[in-house]
Amino acid sequence: MLTAQSTPQEIRLAIRNGEHRTHTSGLAKGFVQCNLVILPKELADEFAQFCRLNPKPCPIISSSQFPGDFKLADAGQDIDIRTDFPSYRVFKDGQFSAEVSDIRDIWRDDFVVFLLGCSFSFEEALIRAGIEIRNISEQKNVPMYETNIPCQSAGRFSGNMVVSMRPMKAADAINAIQICGRYPSVHGAPVHFGDPSLIGIKDLSKPDFGDAVTIRDNEVPLFWACGVTPQLAIMNAKPELCITHSPGSMLVTDLKNSDFAKG
Amino acid sequence: MLTAQSTPQEIRLAIRNGEHRTHTSGLAKGFVQCNLVILPKELADEFAQFCRLNPKPCPIISSSQFPGDFKLADAGQDIDIRTDFPSYRVFKDGQFSAEVSDIRDIWRDDFVVFLLGCSFSFEEALIRAGIEIRNISEQKNVPMYETNIPCQSAGRFSGNMVVSMRPMKAADAINAIQICGRYPSVHGAPVHFGDPSLIGIKDLSKPDFGDAVTIRDNEVPLFWACGVTPQLAIMNAKPELCITHSPGSMLVTDLKNSDFAKG
Repeated sequence: MLTAQSTPQEIRLAIRNGEHRTHTSGLAKGFVQCNLVILPKELADEFAQFCRLNPKPCPIISSSQFPGDFKLADAGQDIDIRTDFPSYRVFKDGQFSAEVSDIRDIWRDDFVVFLLGCSFSFEEALIRAGIEIRNISEQKNVPMYETNIPCQSAGRFSGNMVVSMRPMKAADAINAIQICGRYPSVHGAPVHFGDPSLIGIKDLSKPDFGDAVTIRDNEVPLFWACGVTPQLAIMNAKPELCITHSPGSMLVTDLKNSDFAKG
Repeated sequence: MLTAQSTPQEIRLAIRNGEHRTHTSGLAKGFVQCNLVILPKELADEFAQFCRLNPKPCPIISSSQFPGDFKLADAGQDIDIRTDFPSYRVFKDGQFSAEVSDIRDIWRDDFVVFLLGCSFSFEEALIRAGIEIRNISEQKNVPMYETNIPCQSAGRFSGNMVVSMRPMKAADAINAIQICGRYPSVHGAPVHFGDPSLIGIKDLSKPDFGDAVTIRDNEVPLFWACGVTPQLAIMNAKPELCITHSPGSMLVTDLKNSDFAKG
């Protein structure tokens, strides 16, 4: 049974051995979890540029040192990108093709891996500050919404920003904004709060991804740039092949959240 | 004519000579302006404790080095607290008594001076970040409201917090919260935003002090702890004599705003 006290190595091994097939939320407290994007080398430079132009939704934590590199040694010891995520999504020509738990059989030597920062890191910092995270207390996947905020385009990659939403009281929101501002590598401060229609969201009870959560009368919704953003950009770029993690099923790295706080 | 380019010394001298009798907003860009509280020695320790317990509304920048000290040398060269504010308010037994432009004739050797940080400092930092400050663009005194947020009491000093309000778009508000969080000596981050009724404010168009400002449809009101808070606490303490500055008519010190930013 994996817990908040499990080490990243224990978690990756359990996942590799097929003993953990669900989301990684709450595991290995203190350690950075990462989103995944794998693309053929032919598209990798354009995607890297897209990430650099849109650092809030697409913060690169690590990437392949050469095409075909699936170890990403700077993210942790004995990582195998092909087996260490609980679940992967395969896209062909920009269309969802399959959800799998292992990609060794489809791995190619021209694949380039990108590990992107994820909201789990700042959620941990917020909880430590005594702020309730509704999707955690309600044991749901965070609600995510497509917005009308355009990303900066890079080559074939373009699209609108996807945001995750966490409701809180104003006083907690003020603290959360200051805390998250110190974590630019994991989405940073929110991009919006309050009226969802101002960023093109019609109905908070109907997220485009994840689950709806309760919003109380005295609370305001806060919106953070979300790691699903690159997945939309990839669908627009229509690469012949692309692999991502399944939402919530992340890589647990050996990197510490505290090392990503500035100031 | 005093301007943003005037030096603090020029401004204090002009005020001392009776050449400037109005508010000091926008003068001596980059320099800290201070609120004033003068109390008899008998109440000074309790008031200092009240400020320490409520640092957001009552951030002490400087205070008398001994009873009767009106120079406050650490705040600037040749300051005379008795003449260098454009306007003073005298309170007797907690009741407003008179507004005067010079307090040399009522000065006493048992007076203790407190200089408190003011919002002008963070407004300057926000403008530098490209954020519009509505009370400045509309050339009004900032709107201030009494809230239902209780201060921590100290001896005879108690009361609710007074807040100043500045409306902005959510994206600007997120930046403003992060910027002001770096200026704890000048009120710090806001204490609330959004629904004013949650902190006991009934009608934003009817401020308790200052002037109402325009709030646009796509804007949210942000509320900062305000230096008028100690004035309410003083009215509750009912000191036989107390002197404050008149709202907006501050002391321009030789201290630099930039020296008060942390991180």
